[in-house]
Amino acid sequence: MQSTQLSIDTLDRAQERFIDTLDQMDVSQANTMPKPIIKSVTWLIWHTARMLDLQISELKGDDPLWTSAGWNDKFSLDLPDDTQDYKHTPEEAAKVKVNDKQLLKDYLDAAVKLTKDYLEAVKDDELDEVIDESWTPAVTRQVRIVSSIDDADMHSGQAVYTRRLVIDK
Amino acid sequence: MQSTQLSIDTLDRAQERFIDTLDQMDVSQANTMPKPIIKSVTWLIWHTARMLDLQISELKGDDPLWTSAGWNDKFSLDLPDDTQDYKHTPEEAAKVKVNDKQLLKDYLDAAVKLTKDYLEAVKDDELDEVIDESWTPAVTRQVRIVSSIDDADMHSGQAVYTRRLVIDK
Repeated sequence: MQSTQLSIDTLDRAQERFIDTLDQMDVSQANTMPKPIIKSVTWLIWHTARMLDLQISELKGDDPLWTSAGWNDKFSLDLPDDTQDYKHTPEEAAKVKVNDKQLLKDYLDAAVKLTKDYLEAVKDDELDEVIDESWTPAVTRQVRIVSSIDDADMHSGQAVYTRRLVIDK
Repeated sequence: MQSTQLSIDTLDRAQERFIDTLDQMDVSQANTMPKPIIKSVTWLIWHTARMLDLQISELKGDDPLWTSAGWNDKFSLDLPDDTQDYKHTPEEAAKVKVNDKQLLKDYLDAAVKLTKDYLEAVKDDELDEVIDESWTPAVTRQVRIVSSIDDADMHSGQAVYTRRLVIDK
């Protein structure tokens, strides 16, 4: 059995939770930040898709789908392509809105597929390879994969809390 | 490499997030439910520890640490030992309070250790074994492990949002 299979299964659960949450809201509710320091469901799904896209594309040595597959044009956000999501001020986070929930689902689906395809293809002996020397200890492929799955999953839990704050259920 | 190693690493990150969150709050803040449908950080850590404890103890064929190691007495909650955390009403959830944050850390640590020891010991060919026929499809050890890691990690993200709601940072 592949050492990434349980991570694939965990990512599936995060995606299901995001979609189940989004399906309970209309697009205006999804775009709503309940507090300046609590992100919208739209932001949380967009960020998770983008985080997976940027991290896994880098592991593959490819350009992210955000620019290479034209997701930046489809979203047309008033933010630069290299915006640092995780450092967003409330004002920047509020710019992440969509007109159609399907766009969020489609980008998340593309990013999850990219991730799962990579996790299915990566070999065990590649996991120990150092890919970023700028941290102590240096970051290996395994560390980057785990941090990506963890980030996706913890944000899926936050989406449930944002939903409860916005629609009170 | 063991097929559970990435799940172990993911669980470590969830635990770190819980502890980092708890360390930013005093015990009264940790016990605070910001809304009736948003749990306290105390509840989230207690539930995560208990969920890991109950799920993994069952996979091992053991009684949970909650009763066998006396955590029920240490917490002394006004709730039965078989309380169904995930179905808690706001009134039940509000009963989950502690006088000392260290108790939360200790129970979480015991439950994470139980889980990691099990994940290190479980063999690949045991992962496909059906352990619960009452669901369709039937639940295997692998499914139960993934659902436990996912539940812990998504709740760690929720703890961050509860903290932001309670202490505004």
